[in-house]
Amino acid sequence: MDRSSNIAIVLVETQSPGNIGMVCRAMKNMGLNELRLVNPCQVDHPEAHKFAVSARDILYSAKLFPSLEDAVKDCEISVATTRRHGKYRQEIQTPEEVANKITTQFSTHQVALVFGREDSGLTTGEVALCRWQSTIPAADEYGSLNLAQAVLIFCYELFRQSKAEAVMATRQLADSVAMEAMYRHMEITLLRIGFLNPENPAHIMRTLRRVYSRAELDEREVAVLRGIMSQIDWGTNEFKGRKVPVRSD
Amino acid sequence: MDRSSNIAIVLVETQSPGNIGMVCRAMKNMGLNELRLVNPCQVDHPEAHKFAVSARDILYSAKLFPSLEDAVKDCEISVATTRRHGKYRQEIQTPEEVANKITTQFSTHQVALVFGREDSGLTTGEVALCRWQSTIPAADEYGSLNLAQAVLIFCYELFRQSKAEAVMATRQLADSVAMEAMYRHMEITLLRIGFLNPENPAHIMRTLRRVYSRAELDEREVAVLRGIMSQIDWGTNEFKGRKVPVRSD
Repeated sequence: MDRSSNIAIVLVETQSPGNIGMVCRAMKNMGLNELRLVNPCQVDHPEAHKFAVSARDILYSAKLFPSLEDAVKDCEISVATTRRHGKYRQEIQTPEEVANKITTQFSTHQVALVFGREDSGLTTGEVALCRWQSTIPAADEYGSLNLAQAVLIFCYELFRQSKAEAVMATRQLADSVAMEAMYRHMEITLLRIGFLNPENPAHIMRTLRRVYSRAELDEREVAVLRGIMSQIDWGTNEFKGRKVPVRSD
Repeated sequence: MDRSSNIAIVLVETQSPGNIGMVCRAMKNMGLNELRLVNPCQVDHPEAHKFAVSARDILYSAKLFPSLEDAVKDCEISVATTRRHGKYRQEIQTPEEVANKITTQFSTHQVALVFGREDSGLTTGEVALCRWQSTIPAADEYGSLNLAQAVLIFCYELFRQSKAEAVMATRQLADSVAMEAMYRHMEITLLRIGFLNPENPAHIMRTLRRVYSRAELDEREVAVLRGIMSQIDWGTNEFKGRKVPVRSD
């Protein structure tokens, strides 16, 4: 689905017009177009125009706000981007995790990705206004990314994952009801053939759950795996009733 | 493992000193440090220094070359980054795919990631010099990324995936010999219980290969799956020899 219409990039007190221009270009490269500026430097500036290149439409349509609170008022998900660690109680997510949640669980929500000042980032109060917190993985030696580079990483992750999501959508992944039914079937069959320990079937079942959860099964694949179990069941039932043809050798 | 020592960023005929500076910063942010410049603009320029910020050491240690051929002479893998489509016969990979191969299959190889001129990219001849070709996924409307932004995407993918690879390395993934032995075992067992069509066992086996390849099995998981097959084998053998205790019901 097209997410560009409900994801806003919010820049707080940006000091360099060139950075605002570069952010516009990065956004347009990755299919986003809504820019919100909280108390910025001069926006209509030659450097901003120069670095926006063919994304000047985003620059011209940027909305101005007096505070972050105003800028994210209509957003159900707001993400504070920061490079500080361990100062806040919230869990810190990677851009990859943020983009994954936005493109899957929260695909219809209004989202704001919030970026702080070039020199000092977001204040503690601003971070606290946001629902999630995210840090770009970077080298320990030099973890400070240029503002437009940081914006690009998030936009790229959203673009990459929404494309991946579109591809996945063409494969009909099995839903949790189908997965649970498959696990129950496996447990019964594997108990019957004596593979699982009746005292503690959950131990091996946890391993199988991890394997098949990572495999992201589609409906046909679940049918194939259940088919194997059914074939074993059939053999077991046949055996019980002694209807299996007995080989003479 | 630390890949920074054998991955070089190669910029061909860059025209803007500011872009070279920004590339240095992006590289250092993502833990890379080897920059090679083919016939560049003036490198020791105030704009280059300004945009490199704390990555000036990369700027100062950049190596200059008269041609791309010279710059990639010692590289076993060279990747032409381009935004042209369908002009060349080589398969075009995404940065994600390139980074995946570099961090897994080719982790000990000397690698060059090659970026062209700001206005016109790489020439056909330069692309042909490279072993792989890669294009950053971007919006149809405006697919032209700033040079330093393009470099960042590749450096970010390498950094992200080498971190993921380090996490995976703590799990001992099954090697291809173990995987192939497992597939052979499955095929024999599933043929024996009549689940596979003896005329065309490969059809269903292809599905199972896709499932277990996506699941990225570790050695213990392979042992569990083979254990299920062995249990079925045991039941089948027992049955053949009619040694299974026969239930009276």
